[in-house]
Amino acid sequence: MSHEARLTAAGIVLPRPYPSAGLYEKAVLVGDLLHVGGHGPVTDDPAERINGKVGPNGAVPLEQARLAARLTGLQILTSVRLALGSLDRVERVVKVFGMVNCAPGFNQTPAVIDGCSELFHEVFGDAGRHTRSAVGMAELPFDIPVEIEAIFQVTAV
Amino acid sequence: MSHEARLTAAGIVLPRPYPSAGLYEKAVLVGDLLHVGGHGPVTDDPAERINGKVGPNGAVPLEQARLAARLTGLQILTSVRLALGSLDRVERVVKVFGMVNCAPGFNQTPAVIDGCSELFHEVFGDAGRHTRSAVGMAELPFDIPVEIEAIFQVTAV
Amino acid sequence: MSHEARLTAAGIVLPRPYPSAGLYEKAVLVGDLLHVGGHGPVTDDPAERINGKVGPNGAVPLEQARLAARLTGLQILTSVRLALGSLDRVERVVKVFGMVNCAPGFNQTPAVIDGCSELFHEVFGDAGRHTRSAVGMAELPFDIPVEIEAIFQVTAV
Repeated sequence: MSHEARLTAAGIVLPRPYPSAGLYEKAVLVGDLLHVGGHGPVTDDPAERINGKVGPNGAVPLEQARLAARLTGLQILTSVRLALGSLDRVERVVKVFGMVNCAPGFNQTPAVIDGCSELFHEVFGDAGRHTRSAVGMAELPFDIPVEIEAIFQVTAV
Repeated sequence: MSHEARLTAAGIVLPRPYPSAGLYEKAVLVGDLLHVGGHGPVTDDPAERINGKVGPNGAVPLEQARLAARLTGLQILTSVRLALGSLDRVERVVKVFGMVNCAPGFNQTPAVIDGCSELFHEVFGDAGRHTRSAVGMAELPFDIPVEIEAIFQVTAV
Repeated sequence: MSHEARLTAAGIVLPRPYPSAGLYEKAVLVGDLLHVGGHGPVTDDPAERINGKVGPNGAVPLEQARLAARLTGLQILTSVRLALGSLDRVERVVKVFGMVNCAPGFNQTPAVIDGCSELFHEVFGDAGRHTRSAVGMAELPFDIPVEIEAIFQVTAV
């Protein structure tokens, strides 16, 4: 089953891309590696926006932060499809760097970023297995709760 | 126009390299990728040093932090030229990881790191387009306001 | 002298691997680059566990944090050996990204991460020279004092 077919079968619809908040590209392909810069949990419906610091001392509880990590993963997939034409060109998810906007004292960052890692396993199957860091930042742009960057190995066209 | 020519035409003079503050190299070339480690905004004149946390609650206002990001970019270019012999061997700026030493509540990190991204566009033209993260750290070494690392694709000699 | 021989001669014994704290692999090999995700200072003896924030205002003083960085480096070597079969397949340490769980006001992050960099020089000799960032995080998973990720260039089998 192809990655795009698996996505469709799971009923996952990728969100529209959002504009870069600065002088950068969402992703750059060099050789067989697609470097994807930091993405945030932007959905098609601005009312769904999740914002703020994560943890009992913050505005965003763990379960919602985990959802934010999944939404961020969906935006990454949107950028991957735009860069490659199709998710089927993904050979392997190589690495995820997951950043959580932590309220003081919150350090369950792996449980948050699992929301993105689970999505990549759903969509890419075995090829979705990646290495990772999941760490706590002091601040993230626009007070988003999660920012994630990633590296994908891709096949030639 | 070559990258070195564009640099000269813009009147940009690269700073002297500063010594590594630890057991590391400024950059390592592997295959056609130059991995550049974390750099800081060190200028030739110690009196020009910008130091401290960024934001209304810190010592460094946004505009000065943006200048610090540009100065950091200049140090990165110094390291790239030392590693490659010439900036003309840069095929593409692949990725920038921009870290801002945030005072509590400051999250306009993309506007800060744009200071470096703008420089790379000036010097490399279209080849300067890169993917990026711009995020807020709890602390940076020696209380520098900005630290940036990058990956460049380079041509063989 | 081979890397494994140098390790043995130095009397270094690598620790047992610890289970991933989330949906990720310890390392992923793509082409001739081994991407190693975030590791922590986990030793074979749970009583030796170093935990907490680093600095005079935290639970972990600088010298102990530097030891934690070395222990983290040992765990990375365990993952490298498991992924490659032998440390002798390491051609070059390319990059280290060192993250310190900073108590407020502590920014001697390079001195901490040197604990890992020194280990890589001991084990790999000249091939251990790498580029690096050493920065201060707001939080790290399970309140570990140090988390480190790395990239290694490796030879084909």
